[in-house]
Amino acid sequence: MSHRLVSSARPADEGAAARILELVGPKLEATERLFQERLTSDVPFIARSGEYLVRGGGKRMRPALLLLSARMLGRDSEEEVTYAAVVEMIHTATLIHDDIIDHAELRRGRRTLHSVWGANLTVLLGDWLYTAAMKLALAHDNLRVIDLLCDATLGMTEGELLALERLGAVDLGRDEYLDILERKTARLFAAAAALPALMQPARHEAFEPLERYGRALGLCFQLVDDLLDYTASQDELGKPVLADLKEGKLTLPLLLALPRITPEERRKVAHVLEDRAFRRADPDELLEIVRREGTIEETSRLAEAYAAQAREALAAFPDGEARSALELAPDYVLHRRA
Amino acid sequence: MSHRLVSSARPADEGAAARILELVGPKLEATERLFQERLTSDVPFIARSGEYLVRGGGKRMRPALLLLSARMLGRDSEEEVTYAAVVEMIHTATLIHDDIIDHAELRRGRRTLHSVWGANLTVLLGDWLYTAAMKLALAHDNLRVIDLLCDATLGMTEGELLALERLGAVDLGRDEYLDILERKTARLFAAAAALPALMQPARHEAFEPLERYGRALGLCFQLVDDLLDYTASQDELGKPVLADLKEGKLTLPLLLALPRITPEERRKVAHVLEDRAFRRADPDELLEIVRREGTIEETSRLAEAYAAQAREALAAFPDGEARSALELAPDYVLHRRA
Repeated sequence: MSHRLVSSARPADEGAAARILELVGPKLEATERLFQERLTSDVPFIARSGEYLVRGGGKRMRPALLLLSARMLGRDSEEEVTYAAVVEMIHTATLIHDDIIDHAELRRGRRTLHSVWGANLTVLLGDWLYTAAMKLALAHDNLRVIDLLCDATLGMTEGELLALERLGAVDLGRDEYLDILERKTARLFAAAAALPALMQPARHEAFEPLERYGRALGLCFQLVDDLLDYTASQDELGKPVLADLKEGKLTLPLLLALPRITPEERRKVAHVLEDRAFRRADPDELLEIVRREGTIEETSRLAEAYAAQAREALAAFPDGEARSALELAPDYVLHRRA
Repeated sequence: MSHRLVSSARPADEGAAARILELVGPKLEATERLFQERLTSDVPFIARSGEYLVRGGGKRMRPALLLLSARMLGRDSEEEVTYAAVVEMIHTATLIHDDIIDHAELRRGRRTLHSVWGANLTVLLGDWLYTAAMKLALAHDNLRVIDLLCDATLGMTEGELLALERLGAVDLGRDEYLDILERKTARLFAAAAALPALMQPARHEAFEPLERYGRALGLCFQLVDDLLDYTASQDELGKPVLADLKEGKLTLPLLLALPRITPEERRKVAHVLEDRAFRRADPDELLEIVRREGTIEETSRLAEAYAAQAREALAAFPDGEARSALELAPDYVLHRRA
């Protein structure tokens, strides 16, 4: 089984993961099979790298979200499995290109595609995967769904572009930072959650609250990701701590601390961003700064606020197993360790 | 006027270009405006690089082909303008990624996007443009059209992947070579030509001959491109001659010559492919080989055969101005100098 809802959760969250798997486990398995089936081609490199990608697994958060949302709306067909595979394909394509851009060597503890096969083939594989996702999404003749997926993909790409231009800037503000996260991460979560409302027969009234739920969950997810870079160990993350900073990216804990710290400390942060290495500053010093300034806690509290927003968005829906599982998802996201 | 049907043609073909412009000139202008309009965003980099792209112009071959084909089928609406802009956006996205992969510094005599802004932003701009093209294509609620465009894009990407893996291989055969060209170039020409058959009301009987026309024209176009690398001067091409070889790519004239030349000469070709430079072989020697072996002529004859195939595919359609213009297009492609 290559999706990892259970294995990556810590004991306290196994209840949530087990609940989700009980509800949508068979559909997640079907999604996995479809994902694998679509990552093939008569082009040898696509077949080879597709197999490598499938074996690499992933948390399959977006498919699980889409399937739970579909379940809450009473959908039960092959259609939601198709779309669950589509969102995972889109997500995978963005990861492939992002890893090239970040020169990331590792993802989920394994070598990234471009570090195995080089950037050239890998750029094209990302292109192929984006288009293969759109092609698969056409299977159920629903143009509104394709439009939603195009918008989410455009938003993500715009978020990545803004991230590239702005995340290393020391004048980056909190709101601008959150706008970037909203685009690069939360848009696809929002699309995954809201997409089932567009399936036939459409449930227009469900679209907005589901989108709001997915957006808040996505922001919560990304803030936890940012926090893990400061709090997790290399072993848990499968990549080094403070990796974001070494890639020239400021994330919220340091960003919030910047206006409050000494000019000397600010210079150290700027040095790491500039050098993309800890040559002129020590990682422990920087970790000490965010601890001292309490910005780890502030970021945590913001993540919790988004988790609460997500839960509130579900109030529009009648009680039931799927709603309960969706209510648990923010906690699952808040407490994940990797 | 930034499309260049007239300015890049040599005197003998001005008749063809003028004929095409007379028929679809206003729609080409409208396509240009739409292309420009869609290359904007609230993300500063997209706006900046979009403007740079629009100013760079291009031959707009694929839009012209689509518009002429639509005209031949009696279409006359905004719809074909939309799709003409879409195929140019897809084409532009592939050029952007291909130039990154080839480390190309120049295109149409201007600096490539990645040489101005770096590969990272430029990879994402290509992604954005692919998705923006699909989003625009949704405007007329025609899923069959989206499916055709997805297939063409998948085919092109597969062709590029195969090109990357195989074009430097000295054991590359003629048929394998043509299969790569068919995918990476001819598929989008075929889609542009055949797309108007899918517009409502559909003209199913027109689809196959139009696709055949576009495919043959695309193959002819790409073979002429290969030839120009051997026969044109830097001034005309806006890039150095034998650039393909220096990028590690064997094209048909040398490929056909390889089995016939001396082991010493074959080694020289292999050296250029390996070094990606003329360190151990002289460009003039290699040009002498293809002249001596007559493989420039053989490639020309093959291009002419495809031109004839394209013209024959039009026999299925009644006589008329648009058909005449489409019949002239292969000659225009055969005699272009850049």
